[in-house]
Amino acid sequence: MRRRRIYEGKGKVLFEGPEPGTVVQYFKDDATAFNNKKTGTITGKGVLNNRISEFIMSRLNDIGVPTHFMRRLNMREQLVREVEILPIEVVVRNVAAGSFAKRFGLEEGGRLPRSIIEYYYKSDELDDPLITEEHITAMGWAATQDLDEVMQMSLRVNDFLQGLFIGCGLTLVDFKLEFGRLWEDEEMRLVLADEISPDSCRLWDVESGERMDKDRFRRDMGGVEEAYQEVARRLGVLPEAGPLDLKGPKTVQ
Amino acid sequence: MRRRRIYEGKGKVLFEGPEPGTVVQYFKDDATAFNNKKTGTITGKGVLNNRISEFIMSRLNDIGVPTHFMRRLNMREQLVREVEILPIEVVVRNVAAGSFAKRFGLEEGGRLPRSIIEYYYKSDELDDPLITEEHITAMGWAATQDLDEVMQMSLRVNDFLQGLFIGCGLTLVDFKLEFGRLWEDEEMRLVLADEISPDSCRLWDVESGERMDKDRFRRDMGGVEEAYQEVARRLGVLPEAGPLDLKGPKTVQ
Repeated sequence: MRRRRIYEGKGKVLFEGPEPGTVVQYFKDDATAFNNKKTGTITGKGVLNNRISEFIMSRLNDIGVPTHFMRRLNMREQLVREVEILPIEVVVRNVAAGSFAKRFGLEEGGRLPRSIIEYYYKSDELDDPLITEEHITAMGWAATQDLDEVMQMSLRVNDFLQGLFIGCGLTLVDFKLEFGRLWEDEEMRLVLADEISPDSCRLWDVESGERMDKDRFRRDMGGVEEAYQEVARRLGVLPEAGPLDLKGPKTVQ
Repeated sequence: MRRRRIYEGKGKVLFEGPEPGTVVQYFKDDATAFNNKKTGTITGKGVLNNRISEFIMSRLNDIGVPTHFMRRLNMREQLVREVEILPIEVVVRNVAAGSFAKRFGLEEGGRLPRSIIEYYYKSDELDDPLITEEHITAMGWAATQDLDEVMQMSLRVNDFLQGLFIGCGLTLVDFKLEFGRLWEDEEMRLVLADEISPDSCRLWDVESGERMDKDRFRRDMGGVEEAYQEVARRLGVLPEAGPLDLKGPKTVQ
């Protein structure tokens, strides 16, 4: 049976789910960076991100941060609730790195005076520009009270993830979140959506300072697959199968 | 040189610190339970709790939760800021256990609908009775706005600790916090004080459900020292010295 494809993004494909209000999220091995200017493949990435994101989203559900995650279906797919994604990327930064360090002329690696939340408008054509709360509310991308809730949830996720990763010997430098709206009993609710993985987080080894995330791909540092596997191993979610089994089909039917 | 002893509690002794406004916190191996009705010794506990609490308080300082912790001095001592301790024990519960399960006729192990914060009045004579916000503000133990701050900080600590411990394969069932006041530039600040360790947290192994905390002592389950060591090992703070070196003097001079 052929499933209806709803959307294909850089790292994932969304299919219509088995019941109304559900969506199947398929994790690809495709990697892109710098707004698609760089493309490639990280073998096994989809399998690992599916597991890592399952683990983190489940634990966030446990502590009362609502997410779209329902359950993992197989090696590369998970069932999630259908949401209307806010056109906003929420970036939380604990340590100066990447575009932030460049923008403010800071050296990478310095801890920020406090965690900083940034919003970016999701638009490939516009190169995901930085936006302010003023932009978001004026353009109607989110109401003030929704944005407050997004901020509160993002700070909770940051506290939880910093604890989780430091327990695995990893510094959570920064990460990107997406949120979605869903309706329950005629009431709108905001939930965490998309994924949380080394694709969306900067993770540095506490001892060596080594990058254990997509920066290895962005900067051609090598050892990309190994870094993703090491993060999964430290979180205790590495699939028992060996590296060979991680090779999935590169093209989704 | 003999240091002035400020206070001796169940698990710790406080000495005057080297500079004004500082205190030396000495961790003993003494263990008590049920408000001193049960007493004993857990060999090496002081050394381990000193390390565990150092690690957790430092990481909380990193993420912007202010604590009294300054630095570890040696195997059993740490330097902390002098604070005026609020006469309140803050208990945060994620899973039903201990006195809470008993009080409400719940089986131990059920996850609560949401994290619950309780306050207890610190008084050995009165057996640390449960108190409400109404009691606290009416008796002048803390102002409403201070209590709000205590609650906000406690929830942040809970999010962080749940992440930290789940990353080590441990469920944070519940824990106790204490807060203190200090003055900086004539302004009062509330900071997290006391310690965070298997003495003050219930920690259950995710896989086996085994208790890795003071309940092993409370309930004569054996393997108490090993449980504390295992928690330190998983957090990556086990001193290199072998178990023999953990035996410190039982009496503080």
